[in-house]
Amino acid sequence: MNLSVNVTAEWVHKLSLIRIMAIDVDGVLTDSGMYYTSSGETMKKFSARDGKAIELLQVCGIRPVFITGENNDIILRRAEKLSVREVHMGIKDKVAVAGRLLGKYALGWENVLAVGDDWQDVPLLRAGGFSCCPADALPEIQRQVQYVCRRRGGEGVIGEILALCAAARPEIAAVLEKA
Amino acid sequence: MNLSVNVTAEWVHKLSLIRIMAIDVDGVLTDSGMYYTSSGETMKKFSARDGKAIELLQVCGIRPVFITGENNDIILRRAEKLSVREVHMGIKDKVAVAGRLLGKYALGWENVLAVGDDWQDVPLLRAGGFSCCPADALPEIQRQVQYVCRRRGGEGVIGEILALCAAARPEIAAVLEKA
Amino acid sequence: MNLSVNVTAEWVHKLSLIRIMAIDVDGVLTDSGMYYTSSGETMKKFSARDGKAIELLQVCGIRPVFITGENNDIILRRAEKLSVREVHMGIKDKVAVAGRLLGKYALGWENVLAVGDDWQDVPLLRAGGFSCCPADALPEIQRQVQYVCRRRGGEGVIGEILALCAAARPEIAAVLEKA
Amino acid sequence: MNLSVNVTAEWVHKLSLIRIMAIDVDGVLTDSGMYYTSSGETMKKFSARDGKAIELLQVCGIRPVFITGENNDIILRRAEKLSVREVHMGIKDKVAVAGRLLGKYALGWENVLAVGDDWQDVPLLRAGGFSCCPADALPEIQRQVQYVCRRRGGEGVIGEILALCAAARPEIAAVLEKA
Repeated sequence: MNLSVNVTAEWVHKLSLIRIMAIDVDGVLTDSGMYYTSSGETMKKFSARDGKAIELLQVCGIRPVFITGENNDIILRRAEKLSVREVHMGIKDKVAVAGRLLGKYALGWENVLAVGDDWQDVPLLRAGGFSCCPADALPEIQRQVQYVCRRRGGEGVIGEILALCAAARPEIAAVLEKA
Repeated sequence: MNLSVNVTAEWVHKLSLIRIMAIDVDGVLTDSGMYYTSSGETMKKFSARDGKAIELLQVCGIRPVFITGENNDIILRRAEKLSVREVHMGIKDKVAVAGRLLGKYALGWENVLAVGDDWQDVPLLRAGGFSCCPADALPEIQRQVQYVCRRRGGEGVIGEILALCAAARPEIAAVLEKA
Repeated sequence: MNLSVNVTAEWVHKLSLIRIMAIDVDGVLTDSGMYYTSSGETMKKFSARDGKAIELLQVCGIRPVFITGENNDIILRRAEKLSVREVHMGIKDKVAVAGRLLGKYALGWENVLAVGDDWQDVPLLRAGGFSCCPADALPEIQRQVQYVCRRRGGEGVIGEILALCAAARPEIAAVLEKA
Repeated sequence: MNLSVNVTAEWVHKLSLIRIMAIDVDGVLTDSGMYYTSSGETMKKFSARDGKAIELLQVCGIRPVFITGENNDIILRRAEKLSVREVHMGIKDKVAVAGRLLGKYALGWENVLAVGDDWQDVPLLRAGGFSCCPADALPEIQRQVQYVCRRRGGEGVIGEILALCAAARPEIAAVLEKA
C-alpha cells in the first residue's frame, strides 16, 4: 500500500523507536463531545476507524495506553472492545503514570509517542519521543507537537498516525499491506 | 433531472454492468462513529439520504448487500427498515462472502460495485468491477478506488453513487426523474 | 439589525407573497442522521437555532408546515415544542398534501415556500412560489431550487431562510430587530 | 505557552476588566443540536474542551454564568460537573438577569464578557463590555460582537476565548502555562 506522508530522516529515526502510544481519550478518540442526558454524561462517540488502527498497532508491536483525566465506564467498554489493557483513568499527572509504565516495561521516553488535544496533555506531549495532536486542537497545543493530524479528534486520528509510522517502518507498512 | 458528474466511456461501460452494490457499514453508511454508553456500543448514526437511495437502487435492479466485520443488532434494524435482505455480519474475508453471492445470483466480479472506507475493505475494493470510497477515507484507501465521493461517510454516499450510476445509465436517470 | 443577503426585485416580490413554509424534516431540520439502537430508529438531532426561527416565523405571519415521508413520534415531540400544528407524516405525495392545505387556508402556490433536500422533495420544490435547500443537498437537488442555503441541514437552515425573508420584507426585519 | 491571537491595546484594556463570563448554552456550549427521542428532548452534546476551560476560568478569577432560555435538567448536570453555580434557566430577559448578578457581585457591565449565538442573545451581547460568538452564528449575530471565534459552537469556544483573555492578561497566561 502506498503511503501519503513524507517523513524526514529524523522522524524515521524517532518513529523507529516507538513502543508505546500514550493516548488521551476525549478529543482524540472522540470528537470531544460529552453527551449528557438528565442523568449526566451518558455517551461518548468513538470511531470505527480507530478501532481497526488500534488492533493493527498491537500487531505491529506498539502498545496502546489510554491515560485520561476522566473516570467513566464508557471508556472501559471501549477499551475492552479494542483489547487495550493499560487504561488509566482519573489521572491528574499523566507524566507520572507514563513514567511508571516505562519502568514496568523497561522502556525510555524515546519509546513513547503521545497523542493529546488539550492543555492538560502538554507535559506528556513534551515528555515523549514523538507527539501528535488532532487537527482541531487549539493552536497553542498544535505548536507543542511534532505532527498535527489532518483528521480531527474522533475521525480516525490513530489510523493516520499508524500510516505515519508505516512511512517510517517497513515492517508496519507490510502489516498494513496485508490488513 | 440534470446530473452533475461527467463519466468517461470506460466508466459508462463498467457502470452499465453493475448488478450488486457491496456496502461496508461503519464509515460508509455511518460517519464511522461508535456511540458507547456504559453498556458498550449502543447507537449508530445512519443517513436518511442513504435510505431513499437504497430504496431507489432496488427499483433500478441493483441489489444492495451489506458486508461488515461488525456484529450488531443495530445493523439488522437498519437493514430491515431499508428492505435489504443480504446482510453479512462478523465477516473477516469479505471477498469470500461476495464470491459466494456471485455464485448464488449467477453473476461475475464485473457486476460488483464495492464501497468501503478502511483497510479491511481493500481486497474487496480491488476485486469488484467498480469501487468507491467516502471523501473522508484515508488517502491510502482513496488511491485504491476509482471514484472518491465528495460526501463523507454517513452523509449520503450511496445517493451520490446512485447519481453517478444515473449519469451512465439512462434507465436509472429515468427512475430518479420520477422519484 | 443589518442583514447580509442581497435579494433581487424579483425575489423581493416572490418572498413578499409567502404565507406558508412547507418543510421536509430529515435533512432540513436535522442533519439527515438517523440514530439507531438495537430497537430501531431512536433519536433525531434538531437545531436550537431552528427552534427560535420557527417561533419567529409564526410571529411574522408565515405558517410552518412539516411534510415528511417518515412516520415517527420523535417528529411529533419536536413539533409540539415548537407549536407547529400542521404536521403531515408518512406522506408519499407531498404536492397533494400541500395542495389540500392551500384549499384549507384559501391560498395559492405563490404563497408557498418549500424547503427540501432529497429526491422525493423535488415535485414540491418545483410547485412552490419559492424554494430552498440546505448546503449539503445533492447537486441535482441544488439545481432545482432558487436559494441554496449556506448552512447544512440541521445547522439552522430555517433561521437563514428567515433572514432571507427579512431582507425582502421590512415587517419581518422589524420583528427580528426586536427578537 | 505562546498564544496565537494578537489583541489591540483597546482589547487588552477591555479584557483586563472581565470578571464574569455570561454564557448562553445551546449553540455555544453545544453544537445547537437538540437530540429528541419519542420522549422529547433527551440529550445535549457538550465539549470536553470547554470543561477544562471553564475550570481554568474560575482559577483565573472569572466567574462563569449560564443564562439560557431553555429549561432542562441536562443543563444542570453539566453545570454540576463543571462546578458552575450561577445557572439561570427559562430566561426571556437575559439582560435583566445579568444586571441582577452585577448588583449581587458589585460589578458593572464593563466586567461582563457575553457569549451567544442567536437572536435572543443580541441585547446581552450589546450590553456587555466584550462580546463573542461561535464561528457558526448567523452573519447578523457575527456583526454584533467584537470577537468571532474560529471554533463553532460545541467545539470548545470557551477555550478559545480563554486563550484570547490570556493574550491580554499575563496572569491568565501564567495559569495556562502551568495547566
